[in-house]
Amino acid sequence: MPTPPPDPDCIFCRIVAGDIPCHKLHKDEHTLAFLDINPTAPGHTLLIPKAHNARLDEMPGETMAKLGAVLPRLAGAVAGAVGAPGYNILQNNGAEAGQAVFHVHFHIIPRGLPGSDFRFDWPAGKLESDAAADLIARITSRLA
Amino acid sequence: MPTPPPDPDCIFCRIVAGDIPCHKLHKDEHTLAFLDINPTAPGHTLLIPKAHNARLDEMPGETMAKLGAVLPRLAGAVAGAVGAPGYNILQNNGAEAGQAVFHVHFHIIPRGLPGSDFRFDWPAGKLESDAAADLIARITSRLA
Ligand SMILES: [Zn+2]
Ligand SMILES: [Zn+2]
Repeated sequence: MPTPPPDPDCIFCRIVAGDIPCHKLHKDEHTLAFLDINPTAPGHTLLIPKAHNARLDEMPGETMAKLGAVLPRLAGAVAGAVGAPGYNILQNNGAEAGQAVFHVHFHIIPRGLPGSDFRFDWPAGKLESDAAADLIARITSRLA
Repeated sequence: MPTPPPDPDCIFCRIVAGDIPCHKLHKDEHTLAFLDINPTAPGHTLLIPKAHNARLDEMPGETMAKLGAVLPRLAGAVAGAVGAPGYNILQNNGAEAGQAVFHVHFHIIPRGLPGSDFRFDWPAGKLESDAAADLIARITSRLA
């Protein structure tokens, strides 16, 4: 799959290009990590692919594999540096999901510290077998 | 790095072993995906590594790369199957971060649908340059 071109209107593409500065933590051939300038917790970090894709489902699996190779060690370094007992990895797709910058980015959000105010609310239901069978059919047909 | 052994007390290791059934969506050499039985949205899906690691920072980068190779296509199939305009990818580490099963798992949570009730609250601050310099020093020293 060809590498998508940078989007001149995308703030993360401009950070990758060096046109806008960032508080850099890590850089390699395919990825860049930097501190979020509007942190929701001490050490709040973003990991992005250098190539521009707006949403995860538009991104090649190979690009996600490159991010994946970095994510565990980066997350451990961030949580360890701020002494956080826990952290969330969060990646949002679509305005309905809270996405604000339309270039794929993974948040590393330390939890359990003073100043760590990220919270989620998770009302859970129960999956019935009929609904499950229908979902399995619909999802696996798209994976085939 | 040697593959960690299954944990006999871990529900996800028991699902991987076939001792407990699941609503399976995908399986390959390294990963398994299935429907969450307590969904917070229609199509709420979990993607896990077959190997047992409690937290992301304890997991080899290669394992995360294998999950990463699957995640974009799986997320697109889930969101497409339920017709969700958005979705969140969420992975929790530590009880402080809402982790309930201590075997790494990635949630795919459709958003913007009836019955999709996941919400987060994200009070954001401003990163000052002194704090940024201190964080960069502490995080990059752990990455070195
Ligand atoms: Zn971009
Ligand atoms: Zn396990």
